[in-house]
Amino acid sequence: MNDRDARAAWSALAEPTDPVARALITEFGPARALQLALQPSVHQLHDAIRHAAESPSADEIAVDAADRSALRAPSLEIAERAHLRWCDRAGSVRLEDLIDDADRAGIGFLTPEDDSWPGAVEDLGVNAPYGLWMRGSASPADLLTARPTVAIVGARAATAYGAQVAGDLALGAAERGITVVSGGAYGIDAAAHRGALSAGQSLTCAVLAGGLDRFYPRGNEDLLRAVERHALILSEAPMFTAPTRWRFLARNRIIAALSAATVVVEAALRSGALSTANRADDLSRPVAAVPGPVTSPASAGCHRLARENGAVLITDADELAELVTSSPASDGTGVVDELDLLSAADRRVLDAVPPRSVISCRAAARDCGLGVDAVQAALQRIAMLGLVELTGSGVRRRL
Amino acid sequence: MNDRDARAAWSALAEPTDPVARALITEFGPARALQLALQPSVHQLHDAIRHAAESPSADEIAVDAADRSALRAPSLEIAERAHLRWCDRAGSVRLEDLIDDADRAGIGFLTPEDDSWPGAVEDLGVNAPYGLWMRGSASPADLLTARPTVAIVGARAATAYGAQVAGDLALGAAERGITVVSGGAYGIDAAAHRGALSAGQSLTCAVLAGGLDRFYPRGNEDLLRAVERHALILSEAPMFTAPTRWRFLARNRIIAALSAATVVVEAALRSGALSTANRADDLSRPVAAVPGPVTSPASAGCHRLARENGAVLITDADELAELVTSSPASDGTGVVDELDLLSAADRRVLDAVPPRSVISCRAAARDCGLGVDAVQAALQRIAMLGLVELTGSGVRRRL
Repeated sequence: MNDRDARAAWSALAEPTDPVARALITEFGPARALQLALQPSVHQLHDAIRHAAESPSADEIAVDAADRSALRAPSLEIAERAHLRWCDRAGSVRLEDLIDDADRAGIGFLTPEDDSWPGAVEDLGVNAPYGLWMRGSASPADLLTARPTVAIVGARAATAYGAQVAGDLALGAAERGITVVSGGAYGIDAAAHRGALSAGQSLTCAVLAGGLDRFYPRGNEDLLRAVERHALILSEAPMFTAPTRWRFLARNRIIAALSAATVVVEAALRSGALSTANRADDLSRPVAAVPGPVTSPASAGCHRLARENGAVLITDADELAELVTSSPASDGTGVVDELDLLSAADRRVLDAVPPRSVISCRAAARDCGLGVDAVQAALQRIAMLGLVELTGSGVRRRL
Repeated sequence: MNDRDARAAWSALAEPTDPVARALITEFGPARALQLALQPSVHQLHDAIRHAAESPSADEIAVDAADRSALRAPSLEIAERAHLRWCDRAGSVRLEDLIDDADRAGIGFLTPEDDSWPGAVEDLGVNAPYGLWMRGSASPADLLTARPTVAIVGARAATAYGAQVAGDLALGAAERGITVVSGGAYGIDAAAHRGALSAGQSLTCAVLAGGLDRFYPRGNEDLLRAVERHALILSEAPMFTAPTRWRFLARNRIIAALSAATVVVEAALRSGALSTANRADDLSRPVAAVPGPVTSPASAGCHRLARENGAVLITDADELAELVTSSPASDGTGVVDELDLLSAADRRVLDAVPPRSVISCRAAARDCGLGVDAVQAALQRIAMLGLVELTGSGVRRRL
């Protein structure tokens, strides 16, 4: 079996972040790892796991204490349990036909070897998906690599306010050529996909938790069919995989990784949407939150993100676009000049400096509504870029 | 005339931040400065201004370029203009009777020499008020010095949402023994005073822009009478001073200076309430903003404060109290233990660690909804305080 088929097989055999599978694949590659995993003798598997556990990447794979002890001193019991769970599944799927069967159902399979593989997921390191199953008419390369991307996510139990804001932000993002990634769920996700589609440019990608043989949740089937018809649907799960709660959480890391930035529109304090924000944070990608009424529990998670996790507040599509293009994960397509290097505050200070006359620092502060100290600091930065000149009595433009 | 009478006179003669008056008072003290100011010969005043301009505090007084050039090379013209505006006003007021006249109208006068002078305004430096006129039944020392204070301010054109939140926050603040300072205006200010009074402990202070012979705005007269009856009203303006736009803006520096922290509940992008936030920022006092719907222009200024000026988001009275007690300007009354030293995020991580068992870092992260990296960093900090102990497999409580 080649690596491509082996990746498809692994997507069926192992949970998305199965640490033992990860260790084997990292050490031996997908095809050889699969051979080792499915051999009748568990002793050879045990040896292979022990070997993988000694590799430098093992610690990276073992994200929590339980994983670590499993990989540090891999017991025969651990090998047996892994062997059992993989062979159990292997018995119920024709591994070698997975790709062909999917193809007949209109489902493609992408692997890191494909040109159109969205390289951004590789930032997940050892937790990158084995491969990605896909349906749709848009090219993953065009949607996810050639353009800036943003995740717009949030609570299933969205309010009318949240749904409206998510739709407006997604429409504005798509109108600016930004692909909107979300999870295809009820509430904020659905509003985001709908808003993006409404821009008429098909710039949206739904990442589902279960197999793509059916569209879940049922109530979003029409919407997801529209996403398929015009844009793109992805999942790391092969056909016939049920979207369990664990798969939903694991799926969120893919949404975060595909996106230059993640915007949470509404989330209660324990909403799953916060896990997408946490995954984006793990990847050092910017996280933003949309504020809402403090009297609305659906916005409490957003406010906490801003208060305690340093999430940026986003109130319109311009601010969203600014966040996405400022992301280190953004392609930086488009012309970059000095103005693009300015923070929003510095830009505002610059705008307060008239084109031809000299303005005092205090007057500039009054005009842009910032403190004098902040304006002075901003003017120093802007002056360093050669955009303004500081004189004895104030500041004048140089551009 | 003694310093106390001279301060009352200055409050009538000079605008709150008249740089020439400030320079004279700083150099010669209020009484001697007043003598110099009102002498018939402008030449002696010119000499005095020149002398004051050479003192080290002159640069501090001259906050903008125009002031600075006036004080750097004080011309005879500048002395003449100052002389003219002060003498002009002196002609229409009986300076020596200001305090007695006010007293007959039930208005007191506070100066830095009084025990009950709210020392916090001295942080304004040369721009501290000459003195403060007051009406009310509460002691300024009790309300403004013995207790923590918070400014709750915002737009006159408040929405029902903003008024509700301002009232709830003010009630919650007063219930926690925090004095609520505001500007007595329509909208957010009125809701804040009303909310604070509703706690039944009279912990509110209205700082007005005009003279205290009448209550402005007229529509708030009943509310301001209630504030007078139970609490405190202050103004730097003597009786019969009209509340001009400039006086409103100057007044905001006093609200900011009297308060350990400033909370803006609703403010449009160009709302005057933002100037109070800027003055608090100038004083290095914490500024907070209440989020609201992004679809509401009345919240746009709050969101900008959070996005661009680093204002903290406040969603309830607990968060407000946390902000106030964390302020460097706060008295720090109450017992401080290690728990009080923790940030909200660290506190949440600590809460996720069970009392008796060991929990993995990943499980703690899941429980408190933060990223693993953030939780690990928090645990290091908490461990340094001796509150938890890090073990090979996770973390356990030590308290």
